[in-house]
Amino acid sequence: MSDEVDVPEDHPRYQSLVTRHRIEAGVEKGITSMQGLIAEGRGEAFDYLLGEETIPSADRAARAAAAHFLLGDHPVISVNGNVAALVPEEVVELAEVTGADIEVNLFGRTEERVRAIADHLREHGAGEVKGLTADARIPGLSHERAKVDADGIYDADVVLVPLEDGDRAEALGEMGKKEVVVDLNPLSRSAQVATVPIIDNILRALPNVMRHARDLSGASRTELEAIVAEFDREAALDAAEQRLREGAVADDE
Amino acid sequence: MSDEVDVPEDHPRYQSLVTRHRIEAGVEKGITSMQGLIAEGRGEAFDYLLGEETIPSADRAARAAAAHFLLGDHPVISVNGNVAALVPEEVVELAEVTGADIEVNLFGRTEERVRAIADHLREHGAGEVKGLTADARIPGLSHERAKVDADGIYDADVVLVPLEDGDRAEALGEMGKKEVVVDLNPLSRSAQVATVPIIDNILRALPNVMRHARDLSGASRTELEAIVAEFDREAALDAAEQRLREGAVADDE
Repeated sequence: MSDEVDVPEDHPRYQSLVTRHRIEAGVEKGITSMQGLIAEGRGEAFDYLLGEETIPSADRAARAAAAHFLLGDHPVISVNGNVAALVPEEVVELAEVTGADIEVNLFGRTEERVRAIADHLREHGAGEVKGLTADARIPGLSHERAKVDADGIYDADVVLVPLEDGDRAEALGEMGKKEVVVDLNPLSRSAQVATVPIIDNILRALPNVMRHARDLSGASRTELEAIVAEFDREAALDAAEQRLREGAVADDE
Repeated sequence: MSDEVDVPEDHPRYQSLVTRHRIEAGVEKGITSMQGLIAEGRGEAFDYLLGEETIPSADRAARAAAAHFLLGDHPVISVNGNVAALVPEEVVELAEVTGADIEVNLFGRTEERVRAIADHLREHGAGEVKGLTADARIPGLSHERAKVDADGIYDADVVLVPLEDGDRAEALGEMGKKEVVVDLNPLSRSAQVATVPIIDNILRALPNVMRHARDLSGASRTELEAIVAEFDREAALDAAEQRLREGAVADDE
């Protein structure tokens, strides 16, 4: 990756250093907002309490998410500034593996930022990037927050909304869409309303969903439906909260 | 306050909205850094888990901090970008009540930011603001991180270091100074090395230290020394961690 940090992968703080570097580059490129920086900090705190690793329930959620994406008629990956800054290549690869659309969708929408993010994704290999037309509206949200593409998120039956705000996560759910949410706070409204909440760092979660999607690429519809049916969202949220409360920090003090 | 947000004080999200507004104003004035925004987000997450209130052990810590400041020969309040953005008036008032110096001390030091922060504090009523001379060094830190004023932090016997980074908190402790740390993460290195760790939001902690300082202004040296001796830092850290793990979030779900 062109804007990669020069840190050896076995460095104990590798992930944290890469994250900081990508976020800084995102600020320089105009794709990470002030609210995005604050959100990054909130994520860091929750990840710290989770032990900075993918817990088993998050891995099960990632597998269920992959099954939903493979079963969907029209899966879409919703991308905001932090997602674009942190995992641009992963978004592009996941879209390729699952046949999903990519749509830029911002909480603090400006045409300039939408364009900068779309450019950034194309630099990382994306073909079509939606979100610029903005010719449809999610019902129940204020004008700017509601803007989506008619042939993108508006039409999707499965949406991956990583790091989404609660209002929109709720509004998309009310449209009857299956929602896969990536969020480090199991108590956040986005996580609480998701069909599949993945309580994990997006840097670990997206590659993990992709790994499962590749693994399940030859699976039958019946097999995929069984994975979806078996996934217990309440149990996943409870397991994450328990880990947060009792978890890894106390162990490695 | 001139840059105050227009939100009624009884609004349920008053504190959060004021915080966001002050941080945004800080960015516009060039006093809040990118790292400061990420740190603000980490603080928000920990405060959320603490229940966004001053827990009893944090109130005891604030009282011990006030006693240390009143007992000190040369107390200094160290101010970084987030502290200046969030609680400028409170810093000035606390300095007045306790006879402390104010010194700007930055992790990401630039002359421009030091000057902008000093100006911001003066706009909020500060007299002398130290940190611009930078003619002494804290031993054991790299050049830029080590810069302090010879007649300020270098000479202090008690230092309030709110939102400090771990390396400097440790180095200041090794100089034999009494350190009062305000930090929302009881497991952070700064909190762990502090003489008095106040595990609380700085917006609540500084007014609280000031209230105790006013309350104790007539106390004898013996009374102040008793308060300092009674304060149990390990118990305060444990209580905060327990609250974080088991606390308010589960209760108000």
